[in-house]
This record gives sequence, structure tokens and C-alpha cells, in this order.
Amino acid sequence: MATTSRSTKRADAARNIERALDAAITCLSQRPNATMAEIAKEAGIGRVTLYAHFASRAELLEAVVTRVIEAGERTLSGIDLDGDPRGALTRLITGSWQLVDQARSIIAAAEGEIPPERMRALHGSPAARVEALIARGRQEGSIRADMPATWQVAVLHQILHGAGAEVAAGRLEPNEAPGLIITTVNAILDPH
Amino acid sequence: MATTSRSTKRADAARNIERALDAAITCLSQRPNATMAEIAKEAGIGRVTLYAHFASRAELLEAVVTRVIEAGERTLSGIDLDGDPRGALTRLITGSWQLVDQARSIIAAAEGEIPPERMRALHGSPAARVEALIARGRQEGSIRADMPATWQVAVLHQILHGAGAEVAAGRLEPNEAPGLIITTVNAILDPH
Repeated sequence: MATTSRSTKRADAARNIERALDAAITCLSQRPNATMAEIAKEAGIGRVTLYAHFASRAELLEAVVTRVIEAGERTLSGIDLDGDPRGALTRLITGSWQLVDQARSIIAAAEGEIPPERMRALHGSPAARVEALIARGRQEGSIRADMPATWQVAVLHQILHGAGAEVAAGRLEPNEAPGLIITTVNAILDPH
Repeated sequence: MATTSRSTKRADAARNIERALDAAITCLSQRPNATMAEIAKEAGIGRVTLYAHFASRAELLEAVVTRVIEAGERTLSGIDLDGDPRGALTRLITGSWQLVDQARSIIAAAEGEIPPERMRALHGSPAARVEALIARGRQEGSIRADMPATWQVAVLHQILHGAGAEVAAGRLEPNEAPGLIITTVNAILDPH
């Protein structure tokens, strides 16, 4: 009986942690300054329960960042990046531009509250994929090589962030974003 | 004698205010969280003197934003925007891309501390210039019109911000930035 009760307790705890993380992502996406009380309310759990799992807001933010990185990795690793780098870049953008927008909210919330190396991890792996594709395209001649590759990566990154901001501001329909991003990125990368 | 002393005092006060604003821009550009004590030190004035002119950090930030807007307006209003819109856009970017970078630091510092309508003023007038040029270019056929004008303005804005970030990160030489920005913007706006 004690075992059953312990495993029930564990299941409850796991469910509450899941709820708390989902609620944190929802709240922080809307208001980067969302409080622990607001997150607990959104999660439908008590503040005491929330603090039992996350001793501080910084600890919760750290867990949120980890979850966003992991979810992003799962999405990105499912995208086929072989073959023509331009085609691969199109698939990468189509499959992942919304991750950038979500990451943007979480970065705004976590800035200054979690260690810089964790923040870099948010960007590092997705950026490495883009860098590899751009390097391959430049080598094969399908991407212009008369501007720095670091600049091309930076501009692509800025365009994805810009699309997120335009959608958030209601000036761009989410379903129009990928096509517009790809047209714009193609214009920038086309050999000249 | 009383008049002379009053005018000397006024001149001292004006000089201290100038120093405080210059120091605030320097400090906040490096660390958006710079304190009043750090700013006073950078200005070479006492904290009491700083507080005599700016009752709070928010009041100082407000004055900094006003100064940045005014300096930006002076620079922008000196740029000839007549004639071919593509040429005018090139002149506008060459003459003003560094303002965007400075504004970026100040926005980071002031976010949440000064009223949103003041923040909008930081962007409003420069953005209006770009919008007018893009509208004219689309009408005349020198700028592609198969993507939303709002998107073109947003992307241009993102590219300017990206250039500032790349320079700050040491990946781009300041003197290479304008040429690279213009090449990139041209690739995006060229009729297709």
C-alpha cells in the first residue's frame, strides 16, 4: 500500500510539474514579468505546491528554458537537412520559425535571471544547423559568398525574430509568415 | 553681483545636466542596468548633484530618451530624401544606421520604466521616413510590391538592429556595416 501511495504521489508531482511548466510558458509568452502567483493560478495548482517543485522563480525559468530547448531540438532533429542546402533551409524555416518566436518570449523573461551559458544553448544548436547549411550552399555556389556567412546567419535570425514580432503585433497572419520569410531569405541568399 | 552669481550657477547647472546626460548614454549603452551612482561617477559629479537635476532614475531615463530622439531627428532631417527612393533609402541608411544601434541600448535600458508613448516616439518618426520611401518606390516600380510594405519596413528595421548587434559582438567592423546593410536591403527590395 505504501508503494502504491508513493507512486501515486510521484504521478501527482509529475503532473503538477508538467502543468506548472506549460502554464509558465503560456504566462511568460504573454507577460515576461508574470509572477509565481499568476503561473500557479494558470496551472490550477496552489502556490505552495508550485514552490515545492521550484524553489524560486529563477529555478522555474531555468526549467522552462530547458524544456523549450528540448522541444526545439525534437522538432529540429526531425527535419531532413540533406540534399540541396537551399531546399533544406526552406524545410528548416517552415518547420521551425514558430520556435524562434516562442524562444523570443522566453529569452525576454529569462534575461538576466538565468546563466548566460544556458541562454547560449537556446540559440547554439539551431544556429549551428543554419550555419552548416549556409556554409554548404556557399561552397556549392547556390548561396552568394560575397558577404560574410556570419552576416547571413545573423540576418536570417533577425528575419525570423521580425516575423514573430509582426505576428504578435497583428500585422502578419501566422500562416503567411513562412512563405514571406522564405521569399525574403531567398532574395538575400541568391547568388548575385 | 547677485545676477552674475545666478547666471554662473545656471551655467554650472546646465553643464552638469549635459555631463549627466552624456554619462547616462555612455553607461546605459554598456550596461542597461547602470545605477545612478555609476552614472554620477562617469559624469564626474556628485550623487547629490545628479539627484538635484533628476529626482529619480526614471526621470533621467526620460531625459535620455528625449535627447536621443532629438539628436536622431537632427541627423535624419539633414538627409536629402528627394529623388529616386532607392537612392534616398541608401542615403538614409548610411547616415543613420548607428542611431538605431544607440536607440537599441537606450530602449533596453528604458523598457518598462518610461511610458510606452515616449518609446513609440523613438521609433515613430524614423520609421515614417522609411515607410514613405518604400511606398514611393513600390508605386514607381523600383521596389518590389509582391510582399507587404509593412513587412519590408519590419525587415529593414531588423537588419539595422542586427547590424548593431553584430558590431557589438565584434563580428562586424563598424565601417563595413553600411555597405553590407545596403547590399542586403537592395537584395530584398529589388523588383523580382
